[in-house]
Amino acid sequence: MAGEYDTVIVGAGPAGLSAAIYACRRKMKTVVVAEDVGGQTNLASSIENYPGADAMPGMQLMQRFFSQAKCFGCVFVRGVAVKIKKAGKLFTVELGTGEKLTGKTVILAYGKTPRKLGAPGEEKFIGKGISTCATCDGMLFKGKSVAVVGGGNAALDAALFLSKVAKAVHLIHRRADFRGDELMVERVKKEAKNVQFILESVVTEFRGDKFLKSIMIAGAVGKKTELIVDGVFMEIGYVVDSDWVKGTVKVNEANEICIDSHNRTSQEGIFAAGDVTNVPYKQAIVAAGEGAKAALEAYNFVYGYKYGTASIDWMHTKEK
Amino acid sequence: MAGEYDTVIVGAGPAGLSAAIYACRRKMKTVVVAEDVGGQTNLASSIENYPGADAMPGMQLMQRFFSQAKCFGCVFVRGVAVKIKKAGKLFTVELGTGEKLTGKTVILAYGKTPRKLGAPGEEKFIGKGISTCATCDGMLFKGKSVAVVGGGNAALDAALFLSKVAKAVHLIHRRADFRGDELMVERVKKEAKNVQFILESVVTEFRGDKFLKSIMIAGAVGKKTELIVDGVFMEIGYVVDSDWVKGTVKVNEANEICIDSHNRTSQEGIFAAGDVTNVPYKQAIVAAGEGAKAALEAYNFVYGYKYGTASIDWMHTKEK
Repeated sequence: MAGEYDTVIVGAGPAGLSAAIYACRRKMKTVVVAEDVGGQTNLASSIENYPGADAMPGMQLMQRFFSQAKCFGCVFVRGVAVKIKKAGKLFTVELGTGEKLTGKTVILAYGKTPRKLGAPGEEKFIGKGISTCATCDGMLFKGKSVAVVGGGNAALDAALFLSKVAKAVHLIHRRADFRGDELMVERVKKEAKNVQFILESVVTEFRGDKFLKSIMIAGAVGKKTELIVDGVFMEIGYVVDSDWVKGTVKVNEANEICIDSHNRTSQEGIFAAGDVTNVPYKQAIVAAGEGAKAALEAYNFVYGYKYGTASIDWMHTKEK
Repeated sequence: MAGEYDTVIVGAGPAGLSAAIYACRRKMKTVVVAEDVGGQTNLASSIENYPGADAMPGMQLMQRFFSQAKCFGCVFVRGVAVKIKKAGKLFTVELGTGEKLTGKTVILAYGKTPRKLGAPGEEKFIGKGISTCATCDGMLFKGKSVAVVGGGNAALDAALFLSKVAKAVHLIHRRADFRGDELMVERVKKEAKNVQFILESVVTEFRGDKFLKSIMIAGAVGKKTELIVDGVFMEIGYVVDSDWVKGTVKVNEANEICIDSHNRTSQEGIFAAGDVTNVPYKQAIVAAGEGAKAALEAYNFVYGYKYGTASIDWMHTKEK
């Protein structure tokens, strides 16, 4: 995959793939590098709030994005970007394998990675009872007892899905209220009779031998309880892994890449979009919109258009 | 439609309808007021670059948005918003009919209206040979000779569509290069053999008696030519009609409503999204993302969440 690209897109979630669609529509030579296609959106068992698409599994929605990008001529490279370097007017993105991708612009859209609680035993039991993807691993717990940790839509969605698979689901949330959609909360309460709410409580320890066997829970009243479970699904959000770009672009205190309203980072020629940025609200539709903006901005950068003169966007042109 | 809404959304294009979907998902009492459903997107004969949806007419994509919003409980009111007033903590949006809608928040998402050239005869022949919607009026010019004015995707799209209907299509653009997608330019050149490009030229006059009969064109070399046509499709972009909100929210020199990264206008409680705002790139996917953000922001406003504490968006919470 040698050769010089107009843009190297890092990440293949809604932001990266939307950027790829828009870049290719502009006939930019475009490559997307990512570990997998779909990102966090894959983890949603059903996406109902993506405007313009009927309710469908997140993975299916992401496959649609992927097909569009491929159909418009995008090149895909499987891998992890580990380094980014500027040499003259070009950027080189180095992958874990040592492979290098060179581009006139880079669009950073690699999203977030699951957050950890930091409780004892967590690291040990990841993949041995602890999962961060109910959609992927739910069926392994058929007829068993599981817990879901978290209070957002992802946690509610996981609880709803697991309630149909597992014998019992314990939904553990550190607050009294949920952060997720009221509609989702209602649905869990109505449809999922085997979901038990454990509110104002936190998991303090993961126990077991080879596999997870139980978790310790501390409630609002301070008493610790041991809960016997076969599996725990962690749905407590995501963090940004921006260490590899820190020397290149400015990040904020949450490690998010700082962008302006034109998706420009602090490094000219490098743009960013989606969950990896400081744009509020981490939703597929928001990320997709941001990806489109970043691609159009990269196009303007490559073709030397300036704001207010001959940008491709009609708003910046004076027709009269 | 009396009663107090959590949010009054003005406009039913991608931004307004996406806001409606998101507001309703949060169980906010939501009303959308608009003249029609779909906005400018309706005018596209085929949308190929909306991530997550196969190529389809703009109108069909917008009907999908509409169905989703309705399904989640949104109320629709047909009308034109003409005034907006603040009374205590509530806002009242007055319609042309005198009807009033009261809300705790307002989301302005009413998009843009077609731009005019300002050439002599233009006003006289609108609807009598001059059209701003090829999708709507194209079939009226079956076997006839038409012109398309403009150089963006909308103009290329119109030329492509009209080439299948009309006998001859003259694509008149004031520059040598097109602002639209290269893919679109290529397609017009390849697929539409009856499209004649008239570049670096402007229409200086519209002529006829009861109906349009010809247009005067001035080229780069300065010579004026008369072109006999039965119809002209104006595809030169859009302008914002913000006079009715100017006293309430800050607008920029292009009449666009100024918003911050949280879709907040200068008036607390009033949010804005999509083409009507100063956000760059007027694309359906960008507007849809912005609409979602505005709705989540309105939700936070109504329910008193503050940024950095207990906002509904997981990014603002500290899980540990």
